[in-house]
Amino acid sequence: MNASRLESEVRSYSRNWPVVFDQARGSRLTDRDGRVYLDFFAGASALNYGHNHPVLKRALLDYLERDGITHSLDMLTVAKEDFLREFGARVLGPRGLDYRVQFPGPTGTNSVEAALKLARKVTGRHTVVAFTGAFHGMSLGSLAVTGNASKRGGAGVPLGHTWRLPYDGFAGGEVSGLKLLDSMLDDRSSGMELPAAVIVETVQGEGGVNPAGHTWLADLAELCERRGILLVVDDIQMGCGRTGPFFSFEAAGITPDIVCLSKSLSGYGLPMALTLFRTELDVWRPGEHNGTFRGNNPAFVTAAAALREFWADSALEKQTEVRGALFEERLGDLAQRYPAQVSARRGRGLAWGLAFREAEVARGVADAAFARGLLVETSGSDDEVVKLLPPLTATDEELSEGLGILGESVAATVDA
Amino acid sequence: MNASRLESEVRSYSRNWPVVFDQARGSRLTDRDGRVYLDFFAGASALNYGHNHPVLKRALLDYLERDGITHSLDMLTVAKEDFLREFGARVLGPRGLDYRVQFPGPTGTNSVEAALKLARKVTGRHTVVAFTGAFHGMSLGSLAVTGNASKRGGAGVPLGHTWRLPYDGFAGGEVSGLKLLDSMLDDRSSGMELPAAVIVETVQGEGGVNPAGHTWLADLAELCERRGILLVVDDIQMGCGRTGPFFSFEAAGITPDIVCLSKSLSGYGLPMALTLFRTELDVWRPGEHNGTFRGNNPAFVTAAAALREFWADSALEKQTEVRGALFEERLGDLAQRYPAQVSARRGRGLAWGLAFREAEVARGVADAAFARGLLVETSGSDDEVVKLLPPLTATDEELSEGLGILGESVAATVDA
Amino acid sequence: MNASRLESEVRSYSRNWPVVFDQARGSRLTDRDGRVYLDFFAGASALNYGHNHPVLKRALLDYLERDGITHSLDMLTVAKEDFLREFGARVLGPRGLDYRVQFPGPTGTNSVEAALKLARKVTGRHTVVAFTGAFHGMSLGSLAVTGNASKRGGAGVPLGHTWRLPYDGFAGGEVSGLKLLDSMLDDRSSGMELPAAVIVETVQGEGGVNPAGHTWLADLAELCERRGILLVVDDIQMGCGRTGPFFSFEAAGITPDIVCLSKSLSGYGLPMALTLFRTELDVWRPGEHNGTFRGNNPAFVTAAAALREFWADSALEKQTEVRGALFEERLGDLAQRYPAQVSARRGRGLAWGLAFREAEVARGVADAAFARGLLVETSGSDDEVVKLLPPLTATDEELSEGLGILGESVAATVDA
Amino acid sequence: MNASRLESEVRSYSRNWPVVFDQARGSRLTDRDGRVYLDFFAGASALNYGHNHPVLKRALLDYLERDGITHSLDMLTVAKEDFLREFGARVLGPRGLDYRVQFPGPTGTNSVEAALKLARKVTGRHTVVAFTGAFHGMSLGSLAVTGNASKRGGAGVPLGHTWRLPYDGFAGGEVSGLKLLDSMLDDRSSGMELPAAVIVETVQGEGGVNPAGHTWLADLAELCERRGILLVVDDIQMGCGRTGPFFSFEAAGITPDIVCLSKSLSGYGLPMALTLFRTELDVWRPGEHNGTFRGNNPAFVTAAAALREFWADSALEKQTEVRGALFEERLGDLAQRYPAQVSARRGRGLAWGLAFREAEVARGVADAAFARGLLVETSGSDDEVVKLLPPLTATDEELSEGLGILGESVAATVDA
Repeated sequence: MNASRLESEVRSYSRNWPVVFDQARGSRLTDRDGRVYLDFFAGASALNYGHNHPVLKRALLDYLERDGITHSLDMLTVAKEDFLREFGARVLGPRGLDYRVQFPGPTGTNSVEAALKLARKVTGRHTVVAFTGAFHGMSLGSLAVTGNASKRGGAGVPLGHTWRLPYDGFAGGEVSGLKLLDSMLDDRSSGMELPAAVIVETVQGEGGVNPAGHTWLADLAELCERRGILLVVDDIQMGCGRTGPFFSFEAAGITPDIVCLSKSLSGYGLPMALTLFRTELDVWRPGEHNGTFRGNNPAFVTAAAALREFWADSALEKQTEVRGALFEERLGDLAQRYPAQVSARRGRGLAWGLAFREAEVARGVADAAFARGLLVETSGSDDEVVKLLPPLTATDEELSEGLGILGESVAATVDA
Repeated sequence: MNASRLESEVRSYSRNWPVVFDQARGSRLTDRDGRVYLDFFAGASALNYGHNHPVLKRALLDYLERDGITHSLDMLTVAKEDFLREFGARVLGPRGLDYRVQFPGPTGTNSVEAALKLARKVTGRHTVVAFTGAFHGMSLGSLAVTGNASKRGGAGVPLGHTWRLPYDGFAGGEVSGLKLLDSMLDDRSSGMELPAAVIVETVQGEGGVNPAGHTWLADLAELCERRGILLVVDDIQMGCGRTGPFFSFEAAGITPDIVCLSKSLSGYGLPMALTLFRTELDVWRPGEHNGTFRGNNPAFVTAAAALREFWADSALEKQTEVRGALFEERLGDLAQRYPAQVSARRGRGLAWGLAFREAEVARGVADAAFARGLLVETSGSDDEVVKLLPPLTATDEELSEGLGILGESVAATVDA
Repeated sequence: MNASRLESEVRSYSRNWPVVFDQARGSRLTDRDGRVYLDFFAGASALNYGHNHPVLKRALLDYLERDGITHSLDMLTVAKEDFLREFGARVLGPRGLDYRVQFPGPTGTNSVEAALKLARKVTGRHTVVAFTGAFHGMSLGSLAVTGNASKRGGAGVPLGHTWRLPYDGFAGGEVSGLKLLDSMLDDRSSGMELPAAVIVETVQGEGGVNPAGHTWLADLAELCERRGILLVVDDIQMGCGRTGPFFSFEAAGITPDIVCLSKSLSGYGLPMALTLFRTELDVWRPGEHNGTFRGNNPAFVTAAAALREFWADSALEKQTEVRGALFEERLGDLAQRYPAQVSARRGRGLAWGLAFREAEVARGVADAAFARGLLVETSGSDDEVVKLLPPLTATDEELSEGLGILGESVAATVDA
Repeated sequence: MNASRLESEVRSYSRNWPVVFDQARGSRLTDRDGRVYLDFFAGASALNYGHNHPVLKRALLDYLERDGITHSLDMLTVAKEDFLREFGARVLGPRGLDYRVQFPGPTGTNSVEAALKLARKVTGRHTVVAFTGAFHGMSLGSLAVTGNASKRGGAGVPLGHTWRLPYDGFAGGEVSGLKLLDSMLDDRSSGMELPAAVIVETVQGEGGVNPAGHTWLADLAELCERRGILLVVDDIQMGCGRTGPFFSFEAAGITPDIVCLSKSLSGYGLPMALTLFRTELDVWRPGEHNGTFRGNNPAFVTAAAALREFWADSALEKQTEVRGALFEERLGDLAQRYPAQVSARRGRGLAWGLAFREAEVARGVADAAFARGLLVETSGSDDEVVKLLPPLTATDEELSEGLGILGESVAATVDA
């Protein structure tokens, strides 16, 4: 019996990378046949510290070996307390963030659902502003604020309670979403009521690696505060250092009302998510939002270890920023070399996109890279962007190697 | 800094059990101060094989130690293939179930969301029938079919596309949900269109441990088939052997179109969920439903180990059924002893509820049990039911001990 | 050019009665070719006082001739004041009804929309309970509470915010809607929140002439009052004396919170509608609901004249009740004569339905009647009910004549 | 008993004009005390031919006197055929419009509801694009596309299935609704699905007399055609000659897919409405949309008479255009004289708005006009626009008189 044939048609990555992976460490994966791959995908940014980081692994093994409690719902545990202590001391405290922490269930969409529920509950309003190109998850509340037509089409019901606005730079920037929002809220006959919240990614990963300008984000935050709209930053893909600082919104100098975190939070690829919000927004009644896997203690253990390992000082943040400049330059070279094919290179920190004028070229590049042992994926409205999300912990040599393969892959695709 | 004060008011279990748990093994938990607790809650049925089962633990440690890939989205991995092979060979095959397997994200609500989306997509209809007392999850699609008023109130938007019917035995059974469904669908002016699906739990756990009769379930399945409505069994809490057989619906002789599984699936309390559906329903387009933690390989490893350990033969199933009879008898004794306080004892396999006439008594019993070192929780519309979900792997002595403490706790509460 | 070919396919009555009507008076219509028809349809109860009643006609002509203002939005006019005075003095006052009067626009669906909006605004809740077989109108708010599948299908969007329950006697009465409502509201996990309102017809006209029992209506009113749900009686088709008293709910001894009136209100077939509600529910802000034709003064004039003519004493009410007994008997005879074809005769006052086991027979009877010069239409879920709504002002001879033709038509159809 | 005290708080015009009107003819109303008012409001454009026009009156009286059928649902009648013949011959034919005619019920909101239902049914899509400042009616479907916050607030439920875009010139024109629509539909991740229809007024009456540019309308029509979106023009307030031509969209050279007509259609202020649509869109099933007062024959009679009287040639159209130039000039003078108070004068044909910088000034002007015997009302988001809608049939002297009073009223208000 072929076990793989049991799996639903919904699978996707396994179509582009038709091998069976077995082991992984750092920036490398090994398939069942022993072939090794350099990972510039990093679990769609769920593996910012690489695969199976040895320090985290040791903490995890220790915990499991001594029979630390694994599953605890929302009970208090030693592991959770340790995580909260580290999160307070190394993340919230130094940044002056007065946030409460909710464990909404261990996936990003759980976090977004909790954020939207809380924003609606606090304000008594129902509309949420979301942006073109947004990706926030697949459950019905998150899907309503997600932009992708194919994924939305899976809902099977109309997706409502959302006010969709153009993201920074959308369609060449000719229509300003913030001006539109502001002017429609100024007009009592605009037909749009004051929303409960705005949900935004500072850099849209699935949307094609579109970074919002710091000024745009600051203007958005100012607008929200001025009008009493809650600002939700979905930092699931871009948080945990992907763009440099722990939170991607730090560079814009803003403080969201609510923050969604997941993906690289556990540091080890284990399911974990948080919803953070200003203390005065904590109007939840006990158990009003719950979930079976809120207490995934192995993830708490690796998450605490990751905070100790990577966020005790600003070394990682600075290194990521330096590497961002490198990527900008190297991808800029590629863009210059292939102006007929490459329309843009965009990014921040170690989240980069190489946008092609035609989606087939982007697909071709990703396929050529895979053939050369490099894992990269595409994103964007038409999957026209090759997305680069290497582990933040990759060595300089690995980054160079990956960029080299990418260059070869572009050349091979363009010249083919 | 008190780390716990960071956590949101939404926490609930930690209020009833105000200790910090540290370690766990089998049916026992130990708190930070070394106090030991007998667990008749089992992670709300996420720990059917107890905490940190040594066989699963060994498999997990081996996998982690050899740097098996941890996080893989929906790529193929050795660990996933192993799980699928075991699941096909030990679960689907022997039961003649021609199901495709979707990894919808690692929590129960991910599974329910995927099930509802697929049912709507397949049928092109939008309404889903759900029952009084139902619990299906906290994300917006699942919450719409959940019954609990407090949890629904957290949504902040009207929850639609649902047709709510009385569950088997609701309100003394005086109004038949199935007759109502059938007769309203017979009448072109009833105002209710043909639904996409019916979603049902065979035993409602959160709803107060209400088992539906086998006949009722068979009648429901017949009605669905006759009318072309997809039958979704949410077996998240009652599957994986909780009521005896692997799937709780086996005893009723029905084959659902779609099945949701999670909780005890990994066997180790690790986040994992599946959505199963008949092969011809597999109309998903690639990537139409996705999620970051669909490929939680540590969970695949323990899940496969659990299938090998517990589902190679029918021993566990039979033992659970025998123990069910024991619980029925022992709880029956309690009910007889306290007719003024206990209104019913209900259950199947090792899922039991002791329903009290007054919610405060149920709360008092749970508190008294905790004071005596037994973890039990309440459920039901008014939290009036003491819910018993011991690990299936508990020893006879542990079961006896727990039932003994329960009896003492009832006595202490009633006599107080 | 054939003018009729301009009209949309949506037309329906003109298909069953393919003639061009020209004049009408009392119970008779005359077509372009001079053929005369006896009217047992009465504009679907919009012509309770017959066509072009001479007293009303005189008042209308006088008003038009002296250039009384025709169109006045919601300005005060002499004609409106006169109507309100008569309505207060002859309808509300004698019945002890402390209602405010809203002119919501001149059609039934305007009235229902206003009623539902007000009920939701007053209670801050959104769900409205509606019944199987209900007909409340075609605009989106009214259509959501209407039961007919074909008409609902025209909406093109899911129709929400409605909780549908079986009407009195639905499907043989085996499922009690009121018990279901009560028991679901008793249970905090039923999944149904407290509704804003219940909307009900005392006799469902479009639904197949189904009279609710007085006890059922009183029980419904009691339930609503006990739970703080607003009771809306849609008396559009059955009010204005159709069942005997001015309001059809009087016989059940209930006082709705909100009442919808239209159809025969103007007495002359002119568009007019009211929404009545208890004074303390009058929380509308000025202009919050508006509409161009709220001030259709010609209708106010005939409405006031009709109140003076028919509701100065109880003669019409008593006559209608006596005639109801006649219809019951005559239709009972028919039912007895054709037990294989006729399944029931149902009605109250001068609203009667003869239900056939097969819809084609009902259609055949209506066609046969038309061929014999009698206008009757069908209603019910499958159009299986021949509906009899003669003018209340028909003479005894006309009623006898119509019933005679009906008998012949049944005979001709059954024997064919 | 004070009859007026029976009426609901929802009344509004009667608050600004606290007199009881009695008679009306042409451009003049007379109140109960014999005071005469010049009407620059014309029933919010329902009285384009003035009050009680003698030719229409004669036709109406003749019809009523000879007992023409008054109420006919959607049966064929001589009066309806006559109307359809005139409408075909004088309106549709000369303009080359291949429209089917639906009688959707006699009010504007009935027409809009039918239009939206049909657009959704034809396309199988659910979203409708509507604009800031739009007014389309008060029933739930129409209210969802209406912009006014106060009126929307009356709904009591979230209003969905609408995509709101800035109207031509909104907020100084800095955000182009058409560019936004086009670019969002170009992007598969924009989060906005292809809509069923766009609904638009060519001049927004309630929105503050905002005329869309002809180019903007043509661009909108082109966009709709190119993308397969149905274009619905709500010509309820601006049709029937208000802006010059019979349909207000003629000047822009566009042909909508669906047109809503009402208000001045009957010519006499009697309730009547049509929904027009291209023949191939006529997918209604018989009776799929219905309503009691679709066959208001007195309105058909006056409507046919109005078509014969006013639309046999282009005299009225040309006169209205000439008068539009007069209004533009006279209001321009006012605007120039009071630049600190008047922000704009806008209009087309005989629909004009004088926009004030402060709403209280606009209210003051309307009140001062009323004190001087002129009826004008305010509109716009903040009721900051004095709206001028004189009868098209007013004499030159009446127009001059009204403009004179308006000037005095502005002076009196500004100088006060």
